[in-house]
Amino acid sequence: MTEPGSNPDQCRIIVDAMGGDFAPQNAVLGALWALNENRNFDLYLVGNEKAILDVVLSNNLGFDKEKIIHTEQVIEMGDSPTVSLKTKPDSSLVVGAQWVRDKKADAFVSAGNTGAMMAVSTLIIGRIPGVGRPTIGAEMPSVNGICYLYDVGAGKDAKANHLFEYAVMGSIFAHEMGGIENPSVGVLSMGEEEGKGNEVSEETVKLLKKSKLNFIGNVEGKDILGGKADVVVCDGFVGNIILKFGESVPRLLKYLLQQTAEKNLFDKFKIALTKSSLKKALKVLDYQEYGGVPLLGVNGISIIGHGSSTPKAIKNMVLRAYEMHKKNLVDKITNSIKQYSNLT
Amino acid sequence: MTEPGSNPDQCRIIVDAMGGDFAPQNAVLGALWALNENRNFDLYLVGNEKAILDVVLSNNLGFDKEKIIHTEQVIEMGDSPTVSLKTKPDSSLVVGAQWVRDKKADAFVSAGNTGAMMAVSTLIIGRIPGVGRPTIGAEMPSVNGICYLYDVGAGKDAKANHLFEYAVMGSIFAHEMGGIENPSVGVLSMGEEEGKGNEVSEETVKLLKKSKLNFIGNVEGKDILGGKADVVVCDGFVGNIILKFGESVPRLLKYLLQQTAEKNLFDKFKIALTKSSLKKALKVLDYQEYGGVPLLGVNGISIIGHGSSTPKAIKNMVLRAYEMHKKNLVDKITNSIKQYSNLT
Repeated sequence: MTEPGSNPDQCRIIVDAMGGDFAPQNAVLGALWALNENRNFDLYLVGNEKAILDVVLSNNLGFDKEKIIHTEQVIEMGDSPTVSLKTKPDSSLVVGAQWVRDKKADAFVSAGNTGAMMAVSTLIIGRIPGVGRPTIGAEMPSVNGICYLYDVGAGKDAKANHLFEYAVMGSIFAHEMGGIENPSVGVLSMGEEEGKGNEVSEETVKLLKKSKLNFIGNVEGKDILGGKADVVVCDGFVGNIILKFGESVPRLLKYLLQQTAEKNLFDKFKIALTKSSLKKALKVLDYQEYGGVPLLGVNGISIIGHGSSTPKAIKNMVLRAYEMHKKNLVDKITNSIKQYSNLT
Repeated sequence: MTEPGSNPDQCRIIVDAMGGDFAPQNAVLGALWALNENRNFDLYLVGNEKAILDVVLSNNLGFDKEKIIHTEQVIEMGDSPTVSLKTKPDSSLVVGAQWVRDKKADAFVSAGNTGAMMAVSTLIIGRIPGVGRPTIGAEMPSVNGICYLYDVGAGKDAKANHLFEYAVMGSIFAHEMGGIENPSVGVLSMGEEEGKGNEVSEETVKLLKKSKLNFIGNVEGKDILGGKADVVVCDGFVGNIILKFGESVPRLLKYLLQQTAEKNLFDKFKIALTKSSLKKALKVLDYQEYGGVPLLGVNGISIIGHGSSTPKAIKNMVLRAYEMHKKNLVDKITNSIKQYSNLT
């Protein structure tokens, strides 16, 4: 195993080869695909060496064996995140996070057990000073492009200071990665007027009013897809439910169109014709297309993918990790959180 | 003014003629439309007599002037619900609720200020004994028909006993009005497994396990449209956000289809062809089609409509009030809540 470079301009990404429902196949293929598209980073694969080499060889690909970090254990999708962290110290998830903690890698990418990935990222890589809770966001399609929704599952029963941190970190992400100049921030609520929030959201509004963020007030459920704010913050419980609700829309829609089509032969003809257009349009609602989402607020880059990630999704996750590193996102979040440390 | 009949089989419905963005026009036309479809109830219109008669006459319709309950004041859409309750005692909303309280009417229907309608229903008509919080549900389309989602806006920061009551009342509504034999009940959460809920939802699970309801455990955001449970309960803050998010889907979809169409002339052709089919399929996502929703848990029938209700929506609200009365829904809820009084 070579010692990774210490050049700060160098980008070292470690990918969990054992993560996801189709591991190591999809993880390995996706990671090598990313390397093929962008040769400006060092790729490391963590997991069972033999299993990784099997995928590499059976696909007639090449990969430097010394960049495979062998681990014996695997944290399965159904394992308890906190328990497996202790019982499986030689797992790809634990070792991958240790590499980032030990500055041997700049970013860790995994489509494995989401809870365990959050646990290793938070407990092993560690939080940025001042961050109470790291957050996972979703990039929701909107009529204005993308609405960055935080939090979608990292933390339930969040407090106002957590939602405030989501706004700070989400604004940086939307600016740096989404190219939005001065991202507008809304707090998810039942109505625009004050008093339409719940206890936590109203407390969050008070904090945001005191900040220098581009805070536009309460936004409603319709304003996410409606594109009213670039960044929308809410409790992880709410965000997770919205995200999954949104992901289920295409299935209902296909069902409804099918129902309509069955009633009428001409409709059937029309629907068959439009199928490809609709499929294209709905693609934007499909989580798979985004690849994966970063856990913001940890002291390194940690990208978490869907368990069913395709090689393409893994590739996009790796390329995103590269971009986050190049844009110095972790340092920027660290500085911004420090700036607001007196507010919360 | 005639004294309404006292025959228990008789159904007396009072409609707020001043409620909604297009009042009195839509409210009056919708109410008379309902009467035209079903002559088995007595209709009363509450509001400004002259304004009501203007609509009746200008549309060449007939209505017994003695069944118009004249009120001078109007609670506007932007008025504070609790303040206007006191400052506008001679408003259609206050008087309509008093008619139900005083047993002069069996049901009150309004598309007016939602908060004020909830306030007059809860404070004037009053709650069913044992009900901590009345609830408004949404009928979400699902691949299995309808998913009854409670609560969607009556109460934020709800406690577990409130969510439990929503499950009890929602099950009765789904059974009686939806014709579902033994409605399955789920608690909205971040995952199916225990421990995936927030504090309130996990407490609710404990209560539901002890009940005789057909409780199936936690359900996720995707399970609403996915049809996993007939009745899904959550905090009103969450439900309201989901409902409005869902209502905003058609707009995004039209936008995305348009985007696709603009890129390609053949797609444009295909999309134009399918437009009517898609419109039909999306109709089921449109709140307007349901008419209005009852506030369950108050000691009488109270149906609340969207401010932008069309005459058709008002008609459906009135006919629904009639059906609820015929099915003795309030008594059935009263008895069921009594049965569980020791549990919470």
